[in-house]
Amino acid sequence: MQIIDLTHKFDNITPVYPGDPVPKLDQIKSISKDGYSAFKIQSCTHTGTHIDAPSHILENGKTLSDFSLDTFIGRGKLIDVRGKSPITEKCLEGITIESTDIIILYTGFSEKFKKPEYFIDYPVITQDFANVLILKKAKMLGMDTPGPDRHPHAIHKKLLENDVLLLENMTNLKKLLSISEFRITALPLNLSADGAPARVIAEIQ
Amino acid sequence: MQIIDLTHKFDNITPVYPGDPVPKLDQIKSISKDGYSAFKIQSCTHTGTHIDAPSHILENGKTLSDFSLDTFIGRGKLIDVRGKSPITEKCLEGITIESTDIIILYTGFSEKFKKPEYFIDYPVITQDFANVLILKKAKMLGMDTPGPDRHPHAIHKKLLENDVLLLENMTNLKKLLSISEFRITALPLNLSADGAPARVIAEIQ
Repeated sequence: MQIIDLTHKFDNITPVYPGDPVPKLDQIKSISKDGYSAFKIQSCTHTGTHIDAPSHILENGKTLSDFSLDTFIGRGKLIDVRGKSPITEKCLEGITIESTDIIILYTGFSEKFKKPEYFIDYPVITQDFANVLILKKAKMLGMDTPGPDRHPHAIHKKLLENDVLLLENMTNLKKLLSISEFRITALPLNLSADGAPARVIAEIQ
Repeated sequence: MQIIDLTHKFDNITPVYPGDPVPKLDQIKSISKDGYSAFKIQSCTHTGTHIDAPSHILENGKTLSDFSLDTFIGRGKLIDVRGKSPITEKCLEGITIESTDIIILYTGFSEKFKKPEYFIDYPVITQDFANVLILKKAKMLGMDTPGPDRHPHAIHKKLLENDVLLLENMTNLKKLLSISEFRITALPLNLSADGAPARVIAEIQ
């Protein structure tokens, strides 16, 4: 079995959505002084590779804890949408989507992760594209961008109110391009909150 | 497929090893004021259910990033050691350990997770027990306690210098008692550090 890491590394220079608190990873105990090493982690629920729950954007929306664990595991379907914006329903032509699927958009944008334009110029999806995912009851929509849309986030709301979770800021999707069958496991920290950093992997038999 | 969560929930009252910074999960953005909700997370690398890397206790030891992802996935072998302390080599009699295995000690101690004695009275393993895991090249040793030993942590050192990672503060192990075959997936945050909080699940076919 081959395993591919689809998660950005978390450190002091992980970029964040404008206005979010900066990430911190600072050593607070050392072997020479304390006998062991430990670091303090400071993160926002939406820093780096993470999952959005409905309560991120919907009043009284569900938190991550309201979803069963099988939501975070599914058959991955990679859609190559490089150079496309908006990403329309047409990109789904010929692709069968089932309720066990995690749909992943490969835009190539993760190469810009540490550049200012990453949070500005990213490609977005259309309402029609979102509607197909809702109709087919996809578990999650993943992407190598900060999100599926921009302010006022109508598509965020639409997908999340229909329990299609969002898996944002993925990386290494290029490695999945020639792979026909893979499983996604996207395990978030165990928080009752509006989202959480997640470790995301693809497994190829 | 059945999935069991073996991870303690992370929140403001997650207990920590004496001296470690207290965990925080505080709302910093709200839908009514900011248009979206977000929380700030503060954690130590060794808070709640987490993995220890060698650099936790060994100068110039490996960090979590030095291990391939398959280290965190393996066949689970639950050993029922309730009422035993120390946990000796005898507890491994009749159990075949392979290099794909993640060995898990079920002590029942997770029931005390929020009581002060949790970090004091927990059962420990013997050097002989550790030697078998090293000899058989087990991937990880998991347990529903704060760790495999107490100060000065000779067994921590022994296991970690032989690349047997430690998966500490697990919960819900009781649910695995009657299960003969299961897979453990213990995915830590993607940090180059001495450990990290992890989401840990068991999958039963």
